[in-house]
Amino acid sequence: MANTHNIVWHQHMVDRQLRESHNGHKGAVLWFTGLSGSGKSTLAGAIEHQLASMGSKTYLLDGDNIRHGLCRDLGFSEADRQENIRRVGEVAKLMVDAGLIVATAFISPFQSDRQKVRELFSPNQFFELYVDTPVSVCEQRDPKGLYQQAREGKIKQFTGIDSPYEAPLNPDLHLDGQQPISDSLSQIIALLLRHHIIQIDY
Amino acid sequence: MANTHNIVWHQHMVDRQLRESHNGHKGAVLWFTGLSGSGKSTLAGAIEHQLASMGSKTYLLDGDNIRHGLCRDLGFSEADRQENIRRVGEVAKLMVDAGLIVATAFISPFQSDRQKVRELFSPNQFFELYVDTPVSVCEQRDPKGLYQQAREGKIKQFTGIDSPYEAPLNPDLHLDGQQPISDSLSQIIALLLRHHIIQIDY
Repeated sequence: MANTHNIVWHQHMVDRQLRESHNGHKGAVLWFTGLSGSGKSTLAGAIEHQLASMGSKTYLLDGDNIRHGLCRDLGFSEADRQENIRRVGEVAKLMVDAGLIVATAFISPFQSDRQKVRELFSPNQFFELYVDTPVSVCEQRDPKGLYQQAREGKIKQFTGIDSPYEAPLNPDLHLDGQQPISDSLSQIIALLLRHHIIQIDY
Repeated sequence: MANTHNIVWHQHMVDRQLRESHNGHKGAVLWFTGLSGSGKSTLAGAIEHQLASMGSKTYLLDGDNIRHGLCRDLGFSEADRQENIRRVGEVAKLMVDAGLIVATAFISPFQSDRQKVRELFSPNQFFELYVDTPVSVCEQRDPKGLYQQAREGKIKQFTGIDSPYEAPLNPDLHLDGQQPISDSLSQIIALLLRHHIIQIDY
């Protein structure tokens, strides 16, 4: 205790640059977009684990931790889905400012919503990763049984069934959702290296 | 590039415990509450800088980065102020899960709103820090000229003038807002040590 008693405070800001220099990497968002069942969450979890193993500071935002907390007041109307994506974008921005590499896993079917999120960031902070898996494959996987419910009319406006998915025109990475996860991870790591978000020490 | 090509992914979660073990400290919220001009923001910024200097991973949430982003859709009605505090609590929760020590600086005048935020966290994650400065002193400081505007009737429902401030009944730390900043910092560091959020290596 004794040595904490004479702390003298010098007014300096802690800013993103300082955090990034401490962390040894830059803050950035890996924004995964794709159909339900395309593999977004699996890939987002996998890259988070890979980056954390390499010593990076990371976080994963997905429906599980957003819809039951920050966005618990929102439903699934078009306006509410837009607001959901907007808030996720704003939280990701705060986390990037905190120096983290944030992976997000949301269908985010509309180009305009994704574009608005992109505009919150500097050019080298936001990366749109399109997990491209045919709807027929997603429907066969149907990990949460949602496609079946949509086909039975129990869920309305389900992306890929009776609500459109606007595929990214120019994603930062176009990932084949049917290739081995390790191949996708390699592509994402290469992207982060190419943009100097992370570096590998030899 | 070559050595990143054969990444094999093993399915492990990255969880708070892993992040905390990498960071060398636990995640926690330092929730500063007090009147406008009490010194919340100054203290929150100072402790953030102090902790960052000690190698901790930190972030500061305040009106500057919340009201212009995540909560830009909210006004200052009672309902909107409640929703503002709720969202700040939820973002702080995500950041604590990310392993950060988060300092928040919001007037948060109502006991019930602060209590709801506390309930989002485990007992050893949320610390309410009451920056106790008499309204007369705050009004004299008036760093943003808000008290003057409130006195002139240009701002309605201003906390401490025509809207109540409910002082914490049992804060985790009761800070004298007129003592030297270094004294307050020492008390906060002692609190974090006592609760094993941080540790000091000899």
